[in-house]
Amino acid sequence: MKDFLLKYVKKNKSFWKVEPEIIHGPEFQDCLILKFGKPRTAIYAHMDSIGFTVRYQDQLVPIGGPKAETGYKLVGEDALGPIECELVENDGDLHYKFARGIQRGTELVFKCDFRESEEYVQSCYLDNRLGVFNALKVAETLEDGLIIFSCWEEHGGGSVSYLARHMVEKWGVTQALISDITWITEGVEHGQGVAISMRDRSIPRRSFVNRIIELAEESGIPYQLEVEGAGGSDGKELQASPYPIDWCFVGAPEDNVHSPDELVHKSDIVSMIQLYSTLMKRL
Amino acid sequence: MKDFLLKYVKKNKSFWKVEPEIIHGPEFQDCLILKFGKPRTAIYAHMDSIGFTVRYQDQLVPIGGPKAETGYKLVGEDALGPIECELVENDGDLHYKFARGIQRGTELVFKCDFRESEEYVQSCYLDNRLGVFNALKVAETLEDGLIIFSCWEEHGGGSVSYLARHMVEKWGVTQALISDITWITEGVEHGQGVAISMRDRSIPRRSFVNRIIELAEESGIPYQLEVEGAGGSDGKELQASPYPIDWCFVGAPEDNVHSPDELVHKSDIVSMIQLYSTLMKRL
Amino acid sequence: MKDFLLKYVKKNKSFWKVEPEIIHGPEFQDCLILKFGKPRTAIYAHMDSIGFTVRYQDQLVPIGGPKAETGYKLVGEDALGPIECELVENDGDLHYKFARGIQRGTELVFKCDFRESEEYVQSCYLDNRLGVFNALKVAETLEDGLIIFSCWEEHGGGSVSYLARHMVEKWGVTQALISDITWITEGVEHGQGVAISMRDRSIPRRSFVNRIIELAEESGIPYQLEVEGAGGSDGKELQASPYPIDWCFVGAPEDNVHSPDELVHKSDIVSMIQLYSTLMKRL
Repeated sequence: MKDFLLKYVKKNKSFWKVEPEIIHGPEFQDCLILKFGKPRTAIYAHMDSIGFTVRYQDQLVPIGGPKAETGYKLVGEDALGPIECELVENDGDLHYKFARGIQRGTELVFKCDFRESEEYVQSCYLDNRLGVFNALKVAETLEDGLIIFSCWEEHGGGSVSYLARHMVEKWGVTQALISDITWITEGVEHGQGVAISMRDRSIPRRSFVNRIIELAEESGIPYQLEVEGAGGSDGKELQASPYPIDWCFVGAPEDNVHSPDELVHKSDIVSMIQLYSTLMKRL
Repeated sequence: MKDFLLKYVKKNKSFWKVEPEIIHGPEFQDCLILKFGKPRTAIYAHMDSIGFTVRYQDQLVPIGGPKAETGYKLVGEDALGPIECELVENDGDLHYKFARGIQRGTELVFKCDFRESEEYVQSCYLDNRLGVFNALKVAETLEDGLIIFSCWEEHGGGSVSYLARHMVEKWGVTQALISDITWITEGVEHGQGVAISMRDRSIPRRSFVNRIIELAEESGIPYQLEVEGAGGSDGKELQASPYPIDWCFVGAPEDNVHSPDELVHKSDIVSMIQLYSTLMKRL
Repeated sequence: MKDFLLKYVKKNKSFWKVEPEIIHGPEFQDCLILKFGKPRTAIYAHMDSIGFTVRYQDQLVPIGGPKAETGYKLVGEDALGPIECELVENDGDLHYKFARGIQRGTELVFKCDFRESEEYVQSCYLDNRLGVFNALKVAETLEDGLIIFSCWEEHGGGSVSYLARHMVEKWGVTQALISDITWITEGVEHGQGVAISMRDRSIPRRSFVNRIIELAEESGIPYQLEVEGAGGSDGKELQASPYPIDWCFVGAPEDNVHSPDELVHKSDIVSMIQLYSTLMKRL
């Protein structure tokens, strides 16, 4: 993912309003930072793919919290070559069905079946390829800000804590927007605009969330307010970090969460990009 | 809460033995630090109110771990005006009953019904207004020490980690007392003195806890020893922080935890204040 | 444990290939660091003993996750003298049986019954006395590296975060091996070599794990690959720390985990020491 992004950024940045500084290397592991102008706010977009690790025999253990239904197609590769196998779920135990044994520790992901209609996109990993896409679209016109591509969001975290340290200590930035995808619920619907999450399992500082809602209101861009008691994001790790960081999750909602059939309304992606562009200017 | 405390401190500090430096601002979010003399030990007192966030329709999600019984009175405010509504608990699902809909994301807290007898005080939020009260009483005679008013203790933390960083890096302070309220159990009773918690879900360093017990014993102030396998406090976040901090929870016990009817024996508050005053001198 | 280790190191270090710098003191609480030459990689070995804390009356609460069966012998000491009592497990509730009451907050551990055959060692606390033993054997020939003896691994952590901070900020070391004991499972067997854990509840960075497997493969030392969905180690705290640290758990497997009867095959200890010696040279 990092290599893909590096290549994309290098190819496209000359067409952007401001050319960012590209920051990566061993001290950022597999993460990538784009620094535009004089940043006041950071966009965090995680690059994770949930999936499965091959355990012993035909057993699988999850990476993150993937939906697991018998029949899902999984792909990967081990020393013996490429793999396309089938997931078997049996009373909560997970197995694969494949013509040969797969090497211990091999990672398998959902096979991509990208579908697009006039209104919707559907695929695995819209969470969070769309968050990454949003960041790259915002990059085109961004003047001041950080775009931070992070790892391990789906599996307990581990990069945001050091990325946050760098962000605060190096650039004094303490505002963050979490560019990620959320859930369709009885209160958050397709096509009603990007969701501003007032809380999930974590509760961000109210004054920052209110400021974002105020700016969204002024902008006229369609948005929905989300209020949840569960769920988490890179915001959780920012909240726990030893730095005083204000954060808010702002993202389009999807149906069929963490399955091969994640579904997002295109207009919600449009309003996500618009709102981020506004927020990065005005926050 | 911070504004209330700032006003109180500014009004009263000239009567205190030592006038503290008042430290706050954006880099401390909604937290507040009082610095007295040359601090060796910090008192942490959280300012949280547990409660509920309005979700969709008439649904509520908890802030922290409030007790939830049908009939509890909740208060708050949204753009349409002040709210006084009733909590409805239905098989674990939480709702409100009110003449009109309440705006999504509105925060509701228990309606305060403060009761005082010769021996007891009873109210919501004795946890942790009494911990704050204790800190303010200790402040009157404190010569050297920090008093740190923190946030998010009831909901996963998020301020103590940066407060601890500041405390250690700026002032070299690595000892902390958690000024908070604990539970009446079969081993901790009303009127038997402030509780010194030897452990809860977290286990503080034994040598520090032993030193506190030793000083309590020498002082003659009534105290009880608490040993629990569950429960947490700001100590949990100090324990996890990337600094070597010794901490111990020292606080009066209450009955009817996290309900509108929290009950604390006055003599336990008295011994809490006395023990803190001693510990801040001798640690 | 720290005192024991200090004494052992001071007595033996003159026979080692390189004499380490011995680093300890209040800023490391009860932890201990040995610094050899110019370190590139750190070995973390925790010194914890799981066990029980005496609560009220004859109740016990666990320290870490000890196996608890009626009849286990527990030992400790309080102000009234030495204790050897019996554990009673009753529907999940834990009690002790002893001729007298034991002081609140007293810590009890398994009574040691060390057994040795030609092939196996058996005792309580092989997890993690063997990890400590491994580190001390590797120390004999170590030229460049850190050996870090940590605390609280079995009970939520609390030292690795500051040890990691020191390690990175002071010496720029960002590679770590977790010298600890893992589980016999259907995929990890006695006598098949040290286990290299590709993941447990946490997932270390794949590129680092692959490098370790590659070096193990080249070395010809017997090893097994472990893949788990649960379990944790000091690696979990390194993962969460605000530093970009690569870590991998490498350790012999045991049966009867967290009981007085932990069982490890001697040849797996041998290959653990050999592999660590190789890795510390080549990483």
